[in-house]
Amino acid sequence: MNRNTEQRPIRIGAAHPQGPAAVVTRRAADRARTKFAWVYRTDIEQMLPAEGENTIAPGSLVTVLDARGIPLGTALYSSSSQITLRMVSASAGVTREAYLATLRERVAGAVALRASVSPLSDADNAHRLLFSEADGTPGIIADRYNDLVILQLLTQGTAQDDVRAVLAEGFRLHGISTIVERPDPKIRELEELGPSPTEPLFSDSTEAKLATQFTINGLTFHYDATSGQKTGAFLDQRLNYAAAARYAHGRALDICTYQGGFALHMAQVCERVTGVDASRLALAVADRNLEANPSLKAKVNWIEADAFDLLREYEKGGQLYDTIVLDPPAFAKSKRAMEGAVRGYKEMNLRAMKMLKPGGTLVTCSCSHHISLAEFTEVVASAAADSHKRVQLLETRGAAPDHPAVLTLPESSYLKCLIARVG
Amino acid sequence: MNRNTEQRPIRIGAAHPQGPAAVVTRRAADRARTKFAWVYRTDIEQMLPAEGENTIAPGSLVTVLDARGIPLGTALYSSSSQITLRMVSASAGVTREAYLATLRERVAGAVALRASVSPLSDADNAHRLLFSEADGTPGIIADRYNDLVILQLLTQGTAQDDVRAVLAEGFRLHGISTIVERPDPKIRELEELGPSPTEPLFSDSTEAKLATQFTINGLTFHYDATSGQKTGAFLDQRLNYAAAARYAHGRALDICTYQGGFALHMAQVCERVTGVDASRLALAVADRNLEANPSLKAKVNWIEADAFDLLREYEKGGQLYDTIVLDPPAFAKSKRAMEGAVRGYKEMNLRAMKMLKPGGTLVTCSCSHHISLAEFTEVVASAAADSHKRVQLLETRGAAPDHPAVLTLPESSYLKCLIARVG
Repeated sequence: MNRNTEQRPIRIGAAHPQGPAAVVTRRAADRARTKFAWVYRTDIEQMLPAEGENTIAPGSLVTVLDARGIPLGTALYSSSSQITLRMVSASAGVTREAYLATLRERVAGAVALRASVSPLSDADNAHRLLFSEADGTPGIIADRYNDLVILQLLTQGTAQDDVRAVLAEGFRLHGISTIVERPDPKIRELEELGPSPTEPLFSDSTEAKLATQFTINGLTFHYDATSGQKTGAFLDQRLNYAAAARYAHGRALDICTYQGGFALHMAQVCERVTGVDASRLALAVADRNLEANPSLKAKVNWIEADAFDLLREYEKGGQLYDTIVLDPPAFAKSKRAMEGAVRGYKEMNLRAMKMLKPGGTLVTCSCSHHISLAEFTEVVASAAADSHKRVQLLETRGAAPDHPAVLTLPESSYLKCLIARVG
Repeated sequence: MNRNTEQRPIRIGAAHPQGPAAVVTRRAADRARTKFAWVYRTDIEQMLPAEGENTIAPGSLVTVLDARGIPLGTALYSSSSQITLRMVSASAGVTREAYLATLRERVAGAVALRASVSPLSDADNAHRLLFSEADGTPGIIADRYNDLVILQLLTQGTAQDDVRAVLAEGFRLHGISTIVERPDPKIRELEELGPSPTEPLFSDSTEAKLATQFTINGLTFHYDATSGQKTGAFLDQRLNYAAAARYAHGRALDICTYQGGFALHMAQVCERVTGVDASRLALAVADRNLEANPSLKAKVNWIEADAFDLLREYEKGGQLYDTIVLDPPAFAKSKRAMEGAVRGYKEMNLRAMKMLKPGGTLVTCSCSHHISLAEFTEVVASAAADSHKRVQLLETRGAAPDHPAVLTLPESSYLKCLIARVG
């Protein structure tokens, strides 16, 4: 985050007769015409308070205008974030009431979509219920773990009690026993959000349940809202876990195993799986998850290590595997970090390719928003060329369909997963 | 195909002591270092015959040299195709015997890969067995339809009896009763190939079987090697057919249905499916396929029409569907045809989006080698923006894993299939 850019004061212009408004640059105006675009702070020409006001309250709904004053739609305004405007409607002057009414419909639509593309069953009772722009609900994310819903209200305009009420009402009809808000502390700081409720938004028992077990692909996992880990399971990888298990074999290495998702799935078909992560806390959860699937217990072990250090050491030591999974955290947290990220992906993939036996399976992922599928594929291809091995690309995969993407926002297709056979 | 470029004579240089060779431009040399690259005619500096020879026989194995004479590997040489060299090895001076020995290994590897990623069963007994560069067998494609293998030998260097013998030997052990060569007439002309055998390469009965029934995803289809249709079923869409059936519902329209692949799969879950194709011959096969799946018969009808004409007319008529599939033939047959192709995809996708009821499913495909996934996604996104509808991207899919791609040859990831929910 560039503090200088962040702190650049926004110019306040004359009052706007139809409520608060924002004038944006031409570049942003072109983008804002597509649904659910973001407008960055650097693209704000000026903010116009409503008549009789001097400022615009953080989290307000503002009409977005191009330089000629032509309205482009309505957005949620953040006074502190780099993402100053999140478009919520193509109509101008949307009121809070109208926004909440639309939100109610979108929540119902999102629940219906999951019932169709990711139906609940004994084998699969966790999925993402709301995915911000992709569900037409900018600034709101909700994940369902069995009977527990974890809510993230990511912006000044959505971390508000009226939004909480709409969501509680929309979800409570679907066999959910508790809804808990669990904001990301970094986002809270960036958005300068006030304290969020420490009590569940909704619970059907006097003793609110903040931890639960859930299933994906027939395996059991833990979720504990009181633990220190920021996010829960990577539900976006659900179908990629299952795909990995279709190609995995023999001796497998799961790099950046986090809470053991790939490792446990592969243990169903592999002789032996080693899960590696730098976080002891993550591995403790991974081990609890392993305990919850007793039939896999004898096959999996965990190693606490830095991924790069371990790959370097193992490759030098001539270690060979039949299957390797690479699922590192986002290396490229910003456009600027791209170069280092590309180097990191290249090194990791090249070492993995060298460490695979003939006919080995490589499952390689990237969740960096700033690296496109084409760029990631190019990095992996470049590692393949340097490995002097024959690498066959078998599958190009993304996030599970309960994590939809906005077609007009390429960054929303953030998860890439390639499955290859290394000759 | 540009005749002028095509006919540009290749410069013949001095004899090369280690057998025939080709000197390539720096651009091509950089590419040739990656496995299984193609070298175009325009990138050939000169051809060097073997000592004592004046010319290089069409289909020869030639050593590829950069401008300084440093060997880059061995390639199959075509005297007539735009793709003058197809790299087959990173070693120089590979002999025909060594090439055939490697081919034998690669065929075994390809068969083993399919046994793992696309195993035969009663529900699925068709897949691609050899996919040219992607299986390390440049210029050779083989498709299995139940007990019948259809072979395409695409280059001067592979349309030869020694290659046929290796393939017949490699395949006959796997429950295949007949192997038939069925070259694409256009490629035969471009490659100036001699006549190919009219008899099967191998058959276990005196009366060779040239037609068969096969299954994909539990549905039955016909393949007839004696029919006029150039290709068989689109086996690369196998898993996309199954995916479409997971999202399809209600009243469905299958544009460019060809032999009815998507239509039949959707008929399992939809109320009604209309399959549209401009080719009466294709629809005749589609109808035979429908007959082979009697339980679906009442649900499907066929319309012989141009896709653009029909979409224009139906959209104007206010026709609405719950599910639309777009699977047109490759619009961009060359880089030059890109602009028109983009216009075609845009129009088709925009009309389909407008014709979908709220919550409708769009399955949109492109098999143009010259349009990347990123480009295709951008076109569909642009249609989404113009449709003024909320379009959620649920899945980004490619070819089934029995159609692998070469990581270092992006063109080999030719099949794109997006599944979206149109709000």
